[in-house]
Formats: sequence, structure tokens, C-alpha cells
Amino acid sequence: WSPAAMEAVPVPVPAVSVSVSAVLPAGGSGQRLGGATPKQFCAVQGRPLVSYAVRALERISWISDIIVVVSPENIKTMKTIIEKYDHKRVMVVEGGITRHRSIFNGLKVFAEKEFSSHLLQKPEVVIIHDAVRPFVEEDILSKVVMAAKEHGAAGAIRPLVSTVIASSADGCLDHSLERARYRASEMPQAFLFDIIYEAYQLCTDYDLDYGTECLHLALKYCKTNARLIEGTADLWKVTYKRDLYAAESIIKENLSQEVCVITDAKETIAQVGFLLSESLKSQIKVEAVSISQSKNDSHLQNILSGQCYNFIYVNDKKWAIQETQQIVDILEKSDVPLLYPVVLILVHLDISENNSFSIGMEELTTIKKFARETKRKNILVYGLLIQYK
Amino acid sequence: WSPAAMEAVPVPVPAVSVSVSAVLPAGGSGQRLGGATPKQFCAVQGRPLVSYAVRALERISWISDIIVVVSPENIKTMKTIIEKYDHKRVMVVEGGITRHRSIFNGLKVFAEKEFSSHLLQKPEVVIIHDAVRPFVEEDILSKVVMAAKEHGAAGAIRPLVSTVIASSADGCLDHSLERARYRASEMPQAFLFDIIYEAYQLCTDYDLDYGTECLHLALKYCKTNARLIEGTADLWKVTYKRDLYAAESIIKENLSQEVCVITDAKETIAQVGFLLSESLKSQIKVEAVSISQSKNDSHLQNILSGQCYNFIYVNDKKWAIQETQQIVDILEKSDVPLLYPVVLILVHLDISENNSFSIGMEELTTIKKFARETKRKNILVYGLLIQYK
Repeated sequence: WSPAAMEAVPVPVPAVSVSVSAVLPAGGSGQRLGGATPKQFCAVQGRPLVSYAVRALERISWISDIIVVVSPENIKTMKTIIEKYDHKRVMVVEGGITRHRSIFNGLKVFAEKEFSSHLLQKPEVVIIHDAVRPFVEEDILSKVVMAAKEHGAAGAIRPLVSTVIASSADGCLDHSLERARYRASEMPQAFLFDIIYEAYQLCTDYDLDYGTECLHLALKYCKTNARLIEGTADLWKVTYKRDLYAAESIIKENLSQEVCVITDAKETIAQVGFLLSESLKSQIKVEAVSISQSKNDSHLQNILSGQCYNFIYVNDKKWAIQETQQIVDILEKSDVPLLYPVVLILVHLDISENNSFSIGMEELTTIKKFARETKRKNILVYGLLIQYK
Repeated sequence: WSPAAMEAVPVPVPAVSVSVSAVLPAGGSGQRLGGATPKQFCAVQGRPLVSYAVRALERISWISDIIVVVSPENIKTMKTIIEKYDHKRVMVVEGGITRHRSIFNGLKVFAEKEFSSHLLQKPEVVIIHDAVRPFVEEDILSKVVMAAKEHGAAGAIRPLVSTVIASSADGCLDHSLERARYRASEMPQAFLFDIIYEAYQLCTDYDLDYGTECLHLALKYCKTNARLIEGTADLWKVTYKRDLYAAESIIKENLSQEVCVITDAKETIAQVGFLLSESLKSQIKVEAVSISQSKNDSHLQNILSGQCYNFIYVNDKKWAIQETQQIVDILEKSDVPLLYPVVLILVHLDISENNSFSIGMEELTTIKKFARETKRKNILVYGLLIQYK
């Protein structure tokens, strides 16, 4: 990296000045997918789809609580997923037999302000998203939240891909809709909590059993015309098997554009790691992790497995073969190197006062041998020696 | 295979008793895909998307002519694709600036009954499909054709994935449509030629410039209410980058479920190859090719490259190392073994009267060595010795 790029790039903080929580309905049966496993629990790159959606919300610091609503038979599965992927601020709530009933159950938890001895704050704005839309970004979330604060309700929309037609009772074309006048209603949506909760309290059993559209309830029962926000193409809903294929390819592509910077705890090293992370942020997604903070092996394991294909390990030990071996072992245990080559760059920072910039023949042989062995496991190790004063 | 399975399975012939041709508009610019190449020309598994759509139509024997309509700048590209993939019964016609104008241009060729010195028969029914819907099956094609013959027009439909909403002028929700009453209009569609051609002749410039729906034109100008036929999920339109990913995964999956049976020309061998193909047809897609018919190397090359991952080569020479080497060479030159392991099963038919059922040590060593070498190229060769009397 160039020294200029080393300057820390300031990350814009979105102006979300309101208390926000989220409800993530994950109760669907996934009949359209044609498999036994509901699609939100299908593994994509070894990780259940719902875990990507939870992570997308959990990464956003201004979302307080995330309520995942699942059908009774999947509560245990969902709790296992939360534990395995170390999800934070997430609670699992039992769903109803339809989508609307499940969302209503999720909202009730906030209204009652307490859930299995956790104290919950009723949020001013509640986000409703979908367990099967794994790629939601902070940008659209903050837009729907701010629009909901102003208008009472807001939702993401997309242009229609196909013409929509109405059929007559005998299975013939009645009329086709003018495509430009209509939009597909997508997720996320956001509401002033009191509005959407009132709508659910007022709505009929028919609505709860046969409806699916939250914006419709807010309009019908609270006279709130939701603000519509044009979303990006990646908000689409994983519905068919082909959507799982697409999600997998997108996740792979995203992963190949992410890097994880690992440092040990020493102050100088951590500092270099921080500068490196900050400078890379403008070009690539960066995850930073300090090994000392992660003496807890399973935590390190979570971070290293399945999140990334590219790693930079900064240390001041001469190549730190032992520590590197630990990282390689964890990577090997994960599925990642089976699916894609993993790149691990060892940055050895020489912070000694000694001016001799050299590496011994024996060390070089050890490193080369190490790299040759890991290459067989589809883990490509590169070394970089940097004098740092 | 079991002897019972060797009995030839009769393939049902669809009852399409009407002259049928097809127009395939391929003029789109693919702006939504976010790339420079229009999506119909994007390579999926090394082959342009439009070539899959052409092949899907061309495989169906009761479709006479296929008119591919492309924008002027892509005529040369399209002609190259037709030559490279050895497409038959396909003509390239210059499109207009919109989808409707392109389809109209395609239809005109039939009305004029001649195109660049080819004589064309005006079909009774014309299919209109899409270059970016590569997976259309004979079943839905014959259904829309027969329905068009009866009703004048027919089109495939799918359930809506998202709720459709109408927005007010200020960007707020006006109303949402009841999902169950509406459908997405997809392709293929079919029309009595005279009806759709009349509709295009009568319609306004506004229709030609801003419309997209052929069913709408037939209704508006010829009072023909199209019959709507529920299609399968694989009819979806490749629109976004994620759809290309999905198409690639589906093509890979399909390829892994196809087998190509290769025989040399000798009568007994060809007969066994035929029986094998017929018996496999009930379980897997089978492509049959006789090597002698393909002395033309480029033809054999087309058949072997990119269409299949599984090959069975039936011969009566002792393992036919030289001929096998030729097949391996062609496979190696294609991209296939880079993407996926290729399986090649050598079936040596011993048709001699000699009863000694044996293979020499030396031959076995040669074959084993050969298999070891090809394995490095990701081509897995297996041998099978069968006495056939």
C-alpha cells in the first residue's frame, strides 16, 4: 500500500437519531424451494441463510435489539445458530402460523417491554426485514428508518421485472398493468412502533391469516401512506433454488473482496494493524481482529471461518510459525479452503533498532517448506518483511 | 445397466399438429445488468446465453424456423455464435430500437416469405420467446402452441414473488394489489401468426416505442384474450448479475446430469450405442454421437466441448487408446475440465468368437498409465470390458 493510502479514511456515520430495533420473521416453510429444509435455514457456504440476515442487522450499531421470529419446531435450531455464529443482541420468539401473526408476536415482545427476564426498550422505530434477504445494507436501512420517523411508515421498492397481468375466471388474460405505474414491494420496511403495533391490534383475523403486506395494514388501519424508497437489486428475496445459487455466488464474490487483518496485542503491532485496516477500508471490506483478545479459541474460530478468504497477519516475531500454524489449523477445519483458495499474508514487522535488514537461509527454508505444505491445503501463504521505526 | 433397462423406452411425441416457427428477440442492451456486454451475449460456462435459448428451441423438431432478432451492431457476433455452436434452422434479422419493433421485424420476415434468398413458410402459429430465458422446455412450448391454435394467443405466467403496489405522485403508497388476483407474465408466448401480425400492423408508434407486452397488443387490436398457462420456475428472465450466477449453477447442474454416448461406425457397435442411449434416456439426458460421422474435427469438437461432463465411448478395439487420446485432447482444449471433473467411460466390446475373456498385463499397465495422466487434467477415465455375442 502507498503511504498516502495509510492515512485513516473517516467513515461517515449515518444520522440515525432515533431508537431503533428490528423484527426478523423467519417462520416460512419454504415450499416454493422444493426442499425439506425451510430456505432460511438452508446452508449457503456452510452457513444458514438466516445467519447472514442477522449479521447484516447486527453489524449496524444503531439497531438495539433484533427479534427473530421462528416456528416452534425451529426455536432450538435458531438458538444453536445464534450461539454458533456468536450473534449479539438477538432474541428468539415463537411465531404464529402466518407471516403477519409471526410479526405481531415479535412486536408484542417490545410492547410488553420484557422477554424471558430481559428488559427491552420499546423502540421509536421498528424495522421489519426478512430472514431470506441476506444482503441488506446500512444505507437502505437508515433511509427507511428516517422516512418512517417522518411519515410513520416506509418501505423499499424495486421496479417490476415482468409485466403484471390480471386473469379472468376462465384462465384468460383480463388486462395487463402499465409497468411504469407499479412497483414491487420489497424489504426492509420501517414503522413508528406505535403505528404498526396499533395496525396489528386493529386488524382482522382475515388480515392476519391471508395478508402479507405490512405497508397495507398501516394504510388500512392507521391511514398512514408509507414513503416508498427505491432499493438496490440485492434486496431480492431468496425464493427458489436458483436464488440460493445466486446467493452463494454473491457471498463468494463478497468474501473474495474482504480482508481480515489479524494482529497480536503488542501496542506497536496493534497500531500498525489499525492503520492498515483504516487505509484498506476505502478499497475493500476490512475485518480487524487482535489475537490476544481472542484467547477464547471458538471466538477466533468464528472470525476466521467462513467470513473471509483473505487474511493479513501482522506480528513482530520472526515469522511466528507457531501462531501462523494455529491460524492455518483453524482455516483448515473450516470449509473455506475447499471452496476457494485462502490467501494468508504474513507481515513480519522488524521494530528492532538493528539496521541489518536480513533473513537467514535457515529461516527462509522453514518458511518455504511451511508455505509448500499449506498450499496443498489450498491455503496460500506469502511473507512480507517490513522494517518499522 | 440392468438388462431390463436396455429395452428401448418409447419417447412420447407431443401432439403438435400445426406449422410452428419462432421469433427470439435478442436486441436488449442489458442496462440492468451493469456491464458493457448485453446480457444475452454474456458467457455462461463459456457459451453466450443466447446460444442456450437457441439450442432450447432448435432441439424441438416441430419448430421449423427460428428468427433471432439482434441490434445492427451485434449481427456479426450473432452469426459467429450460430456458426461456432452449429445452430440449425436459425436466421439473424436486424432489430428495431425497441423490443416491440424488433419482434415486428422478425414477424415481417415470415410475412414476406423470403429472407436473403431463403424461402420461408409463413407458420400457422408463431412462438415468441426471449434470448435471456435459456431453460425453456418442450412441455411448456407445446402447451402455449396448442392453446394459441385454439384461442389465438397464449402465454406462460408465474405467481408474483413480491406484492405489487401503486405509488402516488409524491412517492408514497397509494394502494397495494391483492397478490392472488395477479400473475407475472413470462415467456414463451404463442400466437396465430395472422393475429399477432395484424396487431403489430394496427398498433400505434406509442405502443411500438413504450409497450413490451405482446399479449396486450393481441387483446387491444384483435380482441383476442390470451390463454394463460402456468409455467415452471425455470422460465425466469436473466435480468441482474445474480441471475447470471443462477443460470451458471443451473447449467452446471444440468450438465452433470447429461451423458454423451460416443460410438464408432461399425454396425454392431452403433447398435449397442443406440440401445444404451435409449435405455439411459429414461433416467438422464443423453446425446449420441458416432465418431465416423464426425471425421470433421470441428463438429466433434463442438459436440464434445461444453455440452457434457460425462462421456461413454463404446468401441471394439482393444481400449482404442489412440481414439481415446483424440477425445481427451479435444476435452482438454475445452474449458470443461477446468470447471468440473469430466468422466469418460471406455466400454470395450469384445465381439470376437473367442471365449477367452481376458486382458493382458501389458495392456492393463498401458491403460492405468493413461488414466493416471488424464486424471491430472481433471479427466477421469474408467474402463469396462464387455463380451457381446
